[in-house]
This record gives sequence, C-alpha cells and structure tokens, in this order.
Amino acid sequence: MCRFVIYKGTSPVQLSHLLTRPCHSIINQAFDSRLRLDHRRPINGDGFGVGWYDSVHDEELGSQPCIFTAVTPAWNNVNLIRLAEKIKSPLVFGHVRATTTGSLSLDNCHPFAYGKLMFMHNGAIADFHLIKRRLQADLSDDVFNVVQGNTDSECAFALLLSKLPDPKAKSFTTRTLQQAMLDTIATLNLYAEEAGITEPSLMNFCVTDGESVVATRYISSRHDEAASLWFSSGTTFSEYAQGGHYRMAKADKRENIIMIASEPLTFEKADWMEIRTNNMVVITPKMNLLQIPIVDKFYVSPSDPAALNRDTDFAAAKGLLSPHKALAPIQPRKNAPQLSI
Amino acid sequence: MCRFVIYKGTSPVQLSHLLTRPCHSIINQAFDSRLRLDHRRPINGDGFGVGWYDSVHDEELGSQPCIFTAVTPAWNNVNLIRLAEKIKSPLVFGHVRATTTGSLSLDNCHPFAYGKLMFMHNGAIADFHLIKRRLQADLSDDVFNVVQGNTDSECAFALLLSKLPDPKAKSFTTRTLQQAMLDTIATLNLYAEEAGITEPSLMNFCVTDGESVVATRYISSRHDEAASLWFSSGTTFSEYAQGGHYRMAKADKRENIIMIASEPLTFEKADWMEIRTNNMVVITPKMNLLQIPIVDKFYVSPSDPAALNRDTDFAAAKGLLSPHKALAPIQPRKNAPQLSI
Amino acid sequence: MCRFVIYKGTSPVQLSHLLTRPCHSIINQAFDSRLRLDHRRPINGDGFGVGWYDSVHDEELGSQPCIFTAVTPAWNNVNLIRLAEKIKSPLVFGHVRATTTGSLSLDNCHPFAYGKLMFMHNGAIADFHLIKRRLQADLSDDVFNVVQGNTDSECAFALLLSKLPDPKAKSFTTRTLQQAMLDTIATLNLYAEEAGITEPSLMNFCVTDGESVVATRYISSRHDEAASLWFSSGTTFSEYAQGGHYRMAKADKRENIIMIASEPLTFEKADWMEIRTNNMVVITPKMNLLQIPIVDKFYVSPSDPAALNRDTDFAAAKGLLSPHKALAPIQPRKNAPQLSI
Amino acid sequence: MCRFVIYKGTSPVQLSHLLTRPCHSIINQAFDSRLRLDHRRPINGDGFGVGWYDSVHDEELGSQPCIFTAVTPAWNNVNLIRLAEKIKSPLVFGHVRATTTGSLSLDNCHPFAYGKLMFMHNGAIADFHLIKRRLQADLSDDVFNVVQGNTDSECAFALLLSKLPDPKAKSFTTRTLQQAMLDTIATLNLYAEEAGITEPSLMNFCVTDGESVVATRYISSRHDEAASLWFSSGTTFSEYAQGGHYRMAKADKRENIIMIASEPLTFEKADWMEIRTNNMVVITPKMNLLQIPIVDKFYVSPSDPAALNRDTDFAAAKGLLSPHKALAPIQPRKNAPQLSI
Repeated sequence: MCRFVIYKGTSPVQLSHLLTRPCHSIINQAFDSRLRLDHRRPINGDGFGVGWYDSVHDEELGSQPCIFTAVTPAWNNVNLIRLAEKIKSPLVFGHVRATTTGSLSLDNCHPFAYGKLMFMHNGAIADFHLIKRRLQADLSDDVFNVVQGNTDSECAFALLLSKLPDPKAKSFTTRTLQQAMLDTIATLNLYAEEAGITEPSLMNFCVTDGESVVATRYISSRHDEAASLWFSSGTTFSEYAQGGHYRMAKADKRENIIMIASEPLTFEKADWMEIRTNNMVVITPKMNLLQIPIVDKFYVSPSDPAALNRDTDFAAAKGLLSPHKALAPIQPRKNAPQLSI
Repeated sequence: MCRFVIYKGTSPVQLSHLLTRPCHSIINQAFDSRLRLDHRRPINGDGFGVGWYDSVHDEELGSQPCIFTAVTPAWNNVNLIRLAEKIKSPLVFGHVRATTTGSLSLDNCHPFAYGKLMFMHNGAIADFHLIKRRLQADLSDDVFNVVQGNTDSECAFALLLSKLPDPKAKSFTTRTLQQAMLDTIATLNLYAEEAGITEPSLMNFCVTDGESVVATRYISSRHDEAASLWFSSGTTFSEYAQGGHYRMAKADKRENIIMIASEPLTFEKADWMEIRTNNMVVITPKMNLLQIPIVDKFYVSPSDPAALNRDTDFAAAKGLLSPHKALAPIQPRKNAPQLSI
Repeated sequence: MCRFVIYKGTSPVQLSHLLTRPCHSIINQAFDSRLRLDHRRPINGDGFGVGWYDSVHDEELGSQPCIFTAVTPAWNNVNLIRLAEKIKSPLVFGHVRATTTGSLSLDNCHPFAYGKLMFMHNGAIADFHLIKRRLQADLSDDVFNVVQGNTDSECAFALLLSKLPDPKAKSFTTRTLQQAMLDTIATLNLYAEEAGITEPSLMNFCVTDGESVVATRYISSRHDEAASLWFSSGTTFSEYAQGGHYRMAKADKRENIIMIASEPLTFEKADWMEIRTNNMVVITPKMNLLQIPIVDKFYVSPSDPAALNRDTDFAAAKGLLSPHKALAPIQPRKNAPQLSI
Repeated sequence: MCRFVIYKGTSPVQLSHLLTRPCHSIINQAFDSRLRLDHRRPINGDGFGVGWYDSVHDEELGSQPCIFTAVTPAWNNVNLIRLAEKIKSPLVFGHVRATTTGSLSLDNCHPFAYGKLMFMHNGAIADFHLIKRRLQADLSDDVFNVVQGNTDSECAFALLLSKLPDPKAKSFTTRTLQQAMLDTIATLNLYAEEAGITEPSLMNFCVTDGESVVATRYISSRHDEAASLWFSSGTTFSEYAQGGHYRMAKADKRENIIMIASEPLTFEKADWMEIRTNNMVVITPKMNLLQIPIVDKFYVSPSDPAALNRDTDFAAAKGLLSPHKALAPIQPRKNAPQLSI
C-alpha cells in the first residue's frame, strides 16, 4: 500500500507543489480514506522519502540525486515541509511507505540511490524470503554491499544495478536502463519459478539516471491486475483553487511536464491516463513518453478479452489498486500525449 | 481527533490486550477508516503514550506511574509492542494523538504525569493562545515549571495541579480529584469568557492518582455535542475470536473491569454505554462507577428535550465524535452497572 | 555546551565544507574530546540544526531561510550528510546542542526562524524559569505564539522579535538588528535584576536577516569570562590535506569569507581571532566586519587590567569556553581584517 | 567502541541502578572522556538497547526477554529513564552502540532476541562483507529470516542460533549454550580463513537463555589483545555517595550478584577483575562463575610469556580497550570469586 510519484519537467518544480501543498498529493492521500480501498493497513504512516536532481548542474555538487527520508509520517515532518518550500528540481521521485516487508527504518525508505541512479518500488515480491539469498548470490561484492535495509525493494534495486554494464557509469542510455529493468523482472521471475513460488509478484518499479525515467506496471500473473499506475502530462501544474486543489493544464501541444503516479494526484480524472498492465513507461531525456509492452509469459495482448478481465482482488487486497479503477473507467483524453510503442 | 482509553481492574491487565492486540484498540482504530467520520485529519499517527501503575507495590519503585511515549505511529512501534507483551497493570491510560495544537514532540504526548498523578485530554481548548499566558500567570512556580511542551492539554493539567491542595501529596481522596477537575473546567471557562472567546472548548479530561479515576465528557456549550466518551464494565476482557476480536464478558454482578474510552473498543456495541454530555465519570478505589452531572451554565438536564438535540457538527468536524453515535443509537444493556449520581 | 558556526561569504559555500567534512567542524568537535574542557556533560549529541539562505533569489521560493533540524546526533544523520553535499548558501547558521535547558525535541533545536530572520544562542539565561512568564507577558500575541519549545533561547529570540519595529518586515537595516540585540540583552538583564537573580547569564546570540549578521559575546558579569567566540576571515576555505583538514586562505586583502564560531574550526590557530568579551560583532551586507563594545554596567574596558582577568571558571564549568583560550593565548594575525569600533 | 553490561543476581535489580543512575554506567561512560582512549569515534551516541527477563514468572507473559532499544543517545532518552525507574530484573543485558558496521537503525541495536535467547556483541568481525553471504547460506530459512538489520553482530547471533539443536527450545543446558558459542567462533574463523581475511576479528559475545550466561573475550589473533572484558561480584551493588557513585559490596562469601562489563562500572578498581583474553566466562543458573579457555590456534597459555605481551594497539584503535588496562595493572582481590576452569 505504498504510493509514489515521479515528476519530470522541462522546468524545475518546487517540491511543495508536488508533495506538501496539493490536497491530493501522495502525502495527503496517506490519510484521506475516501480514496482508499484498503482498510486493513495503516495509511502510509511508515516513513517516506523524496529524491531529486539539481536544477542547475554544478561541478562541485556532482550529478547524484539528493535523498531525504524519514520514519515519521510525511504529513507532519517539519523538515520535509521546510525543504519542500525551498527546493526546486526538474526530476523528482517521491515515495510514502506502508511496511509490508521490512521494518520501520531509514534504511528501508525509498527512493534508493547509487551513483547517479535512483530507484523506487510499489508492490511486493512474493515470498521474497525464499529467494533473497539466491538473489544476493548473483550480486557482485560492490552491489551486494549497497544493500543496507531488509526490503525486497532494495534487493530488487541491487539486482537491477547488477544488470547494468557499469552501475557507476557517468551516463546511461535510455535503452540501457530499459534493458536492465526487463532483465531484473525476468530474473525475479526466474527465481520465483525455481523456488516454486506461485503467488504473483507486484513489480511497479521506477529507475532514473537523472535524464531518462523507466517505470513499470507489472505483475507476474496472467489473471491478476497489477498495482495501479497512472500518468499525466501538460504544460503547467498549479493550484486553481485554495486548499491545495491542483490541476494539470495544457496550453499547447508541448509536454513540459510528465507525472507518473500510483494514483491520480488531482481530482481531475480526465487529466490522468492509466498505464496498461505489464507495460513499461519511458520518459526520454527529451521528454518523449513511450509505453512499451513487457511481452513474456504473463503478457496478455490488449486485443485479448482476458486483458480486460484481470482480477483486481489480489492488488486490491494489497492496497495497491487506485480507487479510480474500481470506481469508474477512465476515458482517454482527446489531447492525450502521443505514445509510441 | 485524539483517542484515549482508561482501564481499571481488580486484576492487572497485560497491556497488549488493551493496546496492541485488539483489532479495535485505540491504536488499530488509528487506521481503520470504516470507523472514522473525520476525513480531514491524519489518523492518530502523530505520537502516542501509555501510562500505568505497578501491579504490586514496591517501596523501591515508588508509587508514581510509568510513562512510555513516542512520536512515531503506535501501530508500528516495536518498543510498544514488546513492552505491551511484558507489562501488566491494574490502571492504565492510553492515548493516541493527532496534532491539532502543539507540534510533534515527546513533550506533547499524553499522558502527562506529576508525582502520583497522571492526566490526559481528548479535545481542544478553543483559542488557547489567547488565554495561555493568563493561565500561566495563575500557576505556582513549581507547577509552571512542570510544563514542557506547547499543548493546551498539558497547560490544563498544570491548572488542575494548581487546584489541588498539594499536588505532591502521597494520597488524594476521590472527592479532592473531582473538585480539582471541576475547578479546572470552571477556570478555563472563566478565562475564555474574559478573553471573549465564543467557540466552545472540548474538555474530555481524565486524571488519576493510581486509585481513583475522574474523567469528564464536557463541552462549554449548551447547543453542541461534546467529544464522545463511552464506558464498559465486566468481569473479563478477552479475545473470543482470532484476529484480535475482543469482548467484555460479564460472569456475575461484580465489576472487575471498568474501561472508559473515546470510542467503543470492541465491535460489541451492547457492551458499551455512552457517558452523557457534561457529566463527570468517577471510578472509586473500590471500583464503584459514578456518573455526576457538571451543572453550570452549559448544563442541559436530560429531561430537557434540548439535551437530545445537541448539534454533533462541531465535535464531528474536530473528529471527536465516535461513529456509533452518528450511525446508530445505543441501547443500554440490562445488566449495566449501577450509576449513582 | 552548545556550539555554533556562522558563515557569510561573497560566494556560496557547499554546506558539507562547513559542517560534515572538516574534521574540526562543530559536528566533529562534538566527539573530539581532545578539545573539550567540559567532561561533565554529553557532547552535543542532543540534536542540531542548520539554517541557510538561497544562493540565488527566486521569487517563488521567497526570502526566508530554510531550516533543517534533528534530535539524533549530527555526526550520524544521513539526511544532513546528503543535504550538505547538495546545498550551497552564502549565509549559514549551524548549531549543535547539549540539553542544558529544554528537552530533546525538534522544537528546541536552533536556529529559530521567523519570516526572514534566523537566530541562535550559545549559553544559558540564568534561572530562566524565574523570568519566563515576565518575558512572555511583554510579547505581542503574534510573537508569543511563535514560541514552540521550552528553551530560554527561543524565548530570547521572541524577545528580540518584539524589539523590532516590524519583525515581519521585508528588510532590516544592520542598525535595526544591532539595536534590537542590545535591547534584548538590556531587557533580559532588567528581568534578572527584578527577579533577584545573581548568577550571570551567558548570552552569545546571533541574528541575521540574510544580509546583515549581528552576534554577541556577552556575559552579565564584570568578573566572569563569557562563552568563547571567534572569527576568521579570508578568501577561500578549503581542504588542504586529506581527512578533513581545512584552512582559511587569504589570497589578497579582500574578505570574501567571514566565519564566526564558538570555537576555532581549524587547527590553524593563527587563522582565528578571539572576539572580546561583551562585544557585538557585525557583518554588514557588504562584508565589513565590525566589533562594537556593549557598554553597560558589565562592561570592562580593554584598558582596564580587570579585562584580562575575567574568571574562566564559570564559562568553563558550563562547557562554554573554547580550549584555545585555556591552553594558549592567541596572537593576532598581522593581516587581520580591519575592525572598526 | 560499543560497550555492554551483563547483570545476573539472585535478587532483581532496578534497572536504574544499573543503567541511568551510576555516574559510571555504560550510558554515562558514553560521554565521560576521561576514561576514553579512543578519540576518533563518537561516543556511543548511536543508539542503545536493554533486554531483561521478568522477576517473577508469569505464564501469560511468557519466558522471552523484553527488549527496549532506541537510536537517540541513551543519556537523554526519557523513556529509558522512566522505564529504568520502574523495572526490576534478575538478568539484564545493556548495550550502547557506536556505529562501526551497520547504519543507525533500531534493527541494528543490541541486544538481539529469539525466543528465550538474548545476545549482544562488542567488537567487529573483520571484513564481514566478504563472508556475509557465506554465513547466510549456512542458515536455515527460519534463522535467516530472523536477521532484520545489517550488522555483523546480528548475523553472528543468527549463526549461533543455527548451532543450537533447537533454537526455539523451552530450555537450554549451560553446556549447550557454551558449545554453540564455541561453534560460532570456530565457524567465523573458518569463514575468515576461506575468504583470506587476515585482520583479526574482535568477538566479545554474550548469550543467555534467562538462566545461564555465556560470554567470551576473544580475538582471532595470537598477538593482539582482545576487546576488554571485566567482571565483578558481590552481595550488594548500591550507591555509597551522592552523584551516582556506586560500589559492589561483599558481605559474605555468597555471590548474589555477578556483573560482566566491557569496562569497570565503578571507580573502585579493586572490585573488578579482568577476564583473560580468549576465554569464555559462564554464569550458571546457580550463580557459579566459570572461566574457561577457548583453546584453538589463537590461544596462548597464560604461562607463555607471549600471553602478557599481546599488542593492545589493535583493540585500542577500535576503541575497545578499557582504560584500566592501559593505565594500570589490576591486582586480583584476595576475596575474588572462585573460578573453576
């Protein structure tokens, strides 16, 4: 029942507009039960994290992201509130956490970072304790030692690092990140198969090097729905009514802002489009948005009627299905951004 | 939107049965939105506290209560979970907090203690900033220096201490505590009047010296409903079904256990009786339970039709009205404990 | 036994060069016992704070400082370490705390901020509990409500705010800040006199509006030494040897960097000059450094032999005397900045 | 540079007498630099933990220990201070931590517990990252999943658990715990050898099941001194002078109290005896104290002159040598308890 948000813009966003001010930000969602399907679990009071890249490159500051994490609830964290008023960034990852795996610890807060790379996860690797040592055995010493906490998510990040030709590289092509993501998912599926795990894994992953973003909406099942994932794009994201009511506006054809989130971050449903299950979404350095099917044994073609009938119970039981899905179908906007597959 | 619970028993209770195990404890209520009316505020993720007296008197340990507080959410606090499995007490105060006044700080967590006394509050003193200095001026130096945090609640406790003949006394009569409570409320009303404050104050206070318990359900208004307050009594409080389903059982006429809480702590509605607005509830050292009207200008006699028509909007807007009230009237149990007024 | 540092530069400094990397930063001093005289108290493990102004003015971000505080020790705070690598500022206040007054709470961490202003304190107001309510009575409602914690320091800040013509003003002259500082000290002395307090108060205060800095080295005593205060100035502050060995370099006559600190922050003693007891130090917006005597009944002229014989025991007992003073006299550098009185 | 203390008594001790009140407790040592050799590292401000068994067996409460841990410094932890005044136990483990391996996290705080067992470590497994996965591979799934944090110490505990016939057993013989301890050390040595690690490991381990205590003073080196370890025994441990000055008194031949600690906990040197390097100390359920050499390739017989000439630099550099060793030799007391080997 974690939630995350990705912001990438041609201009930097003040973090408060993304995190603390909108009444429907991932932080404020944390306690707005009208929008929750999952009543079994706390509401993302188990820590949070935000990671961002500098607005202006500064040789001295380097190109790694900055990460701020906390184990107290985000909505009441004075440091977050103050920092969010003062920091602008063109590329932000935000994450709020409900402890499903792993204890309440800074080490377990997303996003995780390594060199230029930043990673987060919404979901759960099924029976991860059965494959953790198998995964660790496949890591290089360097990458193994990156892991500080005890979550499936951080291990998945370590695995992704191990799929890169050089995780400490100064730059990555979008394609390199895409391939590492696909390899990570394939390897996790292999481990699960070897261990005889039958419960599906929910693998909504995001990785970025500060230029490209690669995110997945994925479940290792042909029959169940994945954790929800949405995107919105436009030219400005701003408050149109007092009380934190934000809206994505679209002045022209340009996509200056792309947001990807586990749930729509505004009440304007029409501003948000759902990413298809078992697809990868890519934001290129030049702000093109691509949606690419992840074609493996769990893929169901959109033309197959089964694609519409994935069972939402599994993801809903984990608290990982956004309410829009359940409450009402979303109609694509006419002026939706062009997605090339 | 705080919540609290009081337990007093002839036998000590393992804290876990009160706090961590019941699916409907004040801690687990904290994230169960089915029971919440208040969607505007976080859900008691802003710290908690528990205070208890020893099961067996030990000269070396003294007669003061022990207090454990934290600013991380109670549901995920490993120390609370471990302590609650190991501590038994015949008299417990538990409190979960949503920050309405005062910042997120251990200093602001209830219950507050002084010598043998322990105190907590559910509600809010209206426009407290306008009367805080007036209140402080009335305190003795000793009592003034007790105040560590910045809440209205802790100041109300200091005021109550100043109403006692000797707040450091080794013992108090029930009547002394009752009178100090009434004086506290009357003085707060006086301050409000002097300051021209018209918004009602919600003053559900509880104080104990380890032997008597005095609690109030009070609002400084003739027209609005107070924050909710309930009690239950019986011979055993235990889990009747897996998953933390607890029930108060009543084997005979004796009242071995009395619980007072801001909301019913079990799903068995019939086990809980609502305390009348603007009444004081007293548990004597010998486990008699008294309900005593607080007769001042805000009192409305139960025989007056207006008593049934107090407006619930104010308390509900503060998140201080339990859902049972709103959802369904409670029928008194036939075997309800005798209340003497 | 708190410690603080002020940095003001014509160019922004990366916070890590000030706080986390130097082996002799206020944070690392916190556990380097070679430099400590005070063995009775913990070592600044009771929280810390850093406040800074933006490098580049941005209308959207405003002109208030950003504050980051924590109650865990600074040396081990991953958020501080990460932020310090990513933030640059031309004007920084850093503070590490040992709890002498006030509990361990974010509310009690310096620096305190209000609008554009930022304030911190090293020292202790003697018997503050005897004058706290007197002080509070003199505050406007607005300023009274600024106070969140329970320290003498934050109250002193509130008092200073109340001495300003308009604490919410968009700009302040250096002189306005100086006068408010003097008025604050005079008023605190008056309160102490009225309350019959005879123990001296240690009032090393600093305030800034982001442009001017006003700091004091002051004690309300003619016979005791104040808490230590030093300054250093130069053109660059950088690491000259691995392991965090920093040095202030002076390439020419210009003063690009001025640092004021409770203790010398480098091992190069010659880089640091002691500020005289009961003097005010002012850094003007144009980087002029002035040292101005605070002439009141506690002032002793430098020409008076008594000025050299202030008793160091009081400040040392509070852990507020830097070791250089005790260990060896500091020789003024030949190329010391011009101080105008 | 961690420190620990073990208390076992025929009568329960109030935790405050062990932890918070003595001026020379492990907590207060944390900031008393007079006693420190290690100036490079912080001073145990990186969290602490205390574990204890019930004074009186209660079926409902079970026989597992209770653990309280925190990541803020122990000296300022109000919960610890309050709990320590209210809890008595006949068998207590206390630990303060300086982060050498593992991040600042509750998951990394000692003591660790599993069923009835409790474990802590003072020292460091050399190059642990090189053997961590090898160790994990040898664990059963159950035991592997016990590990929550990222320290060498917790992994060593998991290894010890895996050496027991049944780590969930209801009771253990003293001999079973001794053998598991020896097997743990032997296996860690084997791993180090296989990995080509040449730096010695400092393995002062303690384990208890609530009845027996097994502790080691051990280093995997013939030439270097182990981290320090001391014991004291007597009939009462109490404050003989104000200010937290405690002393072990010996009224008769009985040993009612045995304390084992990384450093002497009183200023009475004669009350403390040093445990020999590469020895195991055992406290039996009946309060007999045994010292047993750990005879392996790193053992040097006390009759061998080399035993007196172990190099203290290695342990001192890690901050793990108590100052008594370095400052002055300890003369055995005449009435020292009988040690059977």
